[in-house]
Amino acid sequence: MRVIEAISDLKAIVRTQKSMGRTIGFVPTMGYLHEGHLSLVNMSLQNNDYTIMSIFVNPTQFGPNEDFERYPRDMERDLRLAESAGVDVIFAPSVKEMYPDGYKTYVGVEGITEVLCGKARPGHFKGVTTVVTKLFNIIEPHRAYFGQKDAQQAAVIKKMVRDLNMNVEIITCPIVREEDGLAMSSRNVYLSPEDRKSAVVLSKSLMESEELIKKGETNGGKIRKYIIDRIQTEKNAVIDYVELVNADTLESVDEIKGRVLIALAVKFGSTRLIDNIIVEV
Amino acid sequence: MRVIEAISDLKAIVRTQKSMGRTIGFVPTMGYLHEGHLSLVNMSLQNNDYTIMSIFVNPTQFGPNEDFERYPRDMERDLRLAESAGVDVIFAPSVKEMYPDGYKTYVGVEGITEVLCGKARPGHFKGVTTVVTKLFNIIEPHRAYFGQKDAQQAAVIKKMVRDLNMNVEIITCPIVREEDGLAMSSRNVYLSPEDRKSAVVLSKSLMESEELIKKGETNGGKIRKYIIDRIQTEKNAVIDYVELVNADTLESVDEIKGRVLIALAVKFGSTRLIDNIIVEV
Repeated sequence: MRVIEAISDLKAIVRTQKSMGRTIGFVPTMGYLHEGHLSLVNMSLQNNDYTIMSIFVNPTQFGPNEDFERYPRDMERDLRLAESAGVDVIFAPSVKEMYPDGYKTYVGVEGITEVLCGKARPGHFKGVTTVVTKLFNIIEPHRAYFGQKDAQQAAVIKKMVRDLNMNVEIITCPIVREEDGLAMSSRNVYLSPEDRKSAVVLSKSLMESEELIKKGETNGGKIRKYIIDRIQTEKNAVIDYVELVNADTLESVDEIKGRVLIALAVKFGSTRLIDNIIVEV
Repeated sequence: MRVIEAISDLKAIVRTQKSMGRTIGFVPTMGYLHEGHLSLVNMSLQNNDYTIMSIFVNPTQFGPNEDFERYPRDMERDLRLAESAGVDVIFAPSVKEMYPDGYKTYVGVEGITEVLCGKARPGHFKGVTTVVTKLFNIIEPHRAYFGQKDAQQAAVIKKMVRDLNMNVEIITCPIVREEDGLAMSSRNVYLSPEDRKSAVVLSKSLMESEELIKKGETNGGKIRKYIIDRIQTEKNAVIDYVELVNADTLESVDEIKGRVLIALAVKFGSTRLIDNIIVEV
């Protein structure tokens, strides 16, 4: 496995691989890898000849009061995990390499970036779409892999790719969960033992609401209230949002019909966790 | 010469040409072709195996009170001119093909889009960078050709390509002028015979200021005043701006040193004309 820091070096590698007719799969990450990331690598290995993973904690997607500085990092461990997973190249640029002095260009998707996580994190998705556009231009992958855990991110990226006519297929992979159901996240490491225990309520409330819907409940308001009440049984949970939206357009839905995304964000102390399920009725 | 309206058809052609190892030159236009456009085609033919020209009056780069509806169009004449110039493919999509219902994604360059023409035309360059990004993704050209007449546009596109790591070389071609010096523009057709005559003052004032600089004038303010006074000898000329800026960063300069862009925009009736020169001291 090669570790590349310079954009020009990575472009040269990509050119060589493409000249040999190889297909390229791309897994963008912010590092501090867990099984969720590795499931993306697995998918990429199955469908492509060559897999590139980026590890880059992207400053432009963090707000001024967010956790950019203290976001967990462990490059040595990440490289070990990526190598044993079968990654061909790690791209780990510096912030200066990606955003040199005088950087001025941004890509933004309107509408679907202002709801859900976009409400509490203004500018977040503009940072995501900008860095992903740059990475796509650098790597020109045939396929790129994103986790369903960041459901809104996946929807925004798909919309951007369609709108801007980008030549890459976006593949969303299922959420990988801890044994007790908690969605895997690099941010789980922040949780105190007590919060870690309470956080199970997120996935539990989603699974239970899925059961209610399977049993015939179609009233979105009732499901939303059920989840909110359930989460509030944990005293240390502070709800940011619980929303039911159309899984593609992210528009609010009252009646559960078609593909509905049930998404939530909840804070435990200063740690903000997200989780979601898609139900199809 | 083939005329293509569907993005998917053009992508298929590009794929075929690239699989044969051919290099692709791209000339984006809004049609109503003149010799300026054809000089771009000429450059493209010299340096590439295959030349694609787009003809698309892009609505997102026109303000609500601008001339999108009445912008001159003559597709039949354009096709004749493009074919005899040696263009291989014309891409002439509908507005709906480029911006389907629910379109939401925009590319913007900050800073250098807010000066010069960006002041009077807020949002104009966001429309330009968005449509050019889409066209670059559809065509994936090796080289793209822009006229120096739109000096700010060329600087903005170059900045975008650098910032977003796009894989295309931007080539700027010299302004092509009428015999009396007026810079060629599709909008010249709007001018009344009287305004057409007066408009020569734009290029004249630029050429004269170049002479003054060659003779040793380094005071930007004096040159600016000279041009303004000269243009105001024409009663029907209404100055939008006359500016001296760094040719790359578009930052205002007081002293004429290095590569300086002298750019102006002047209205005759409702017709807004632009012109510029670059001086190097």
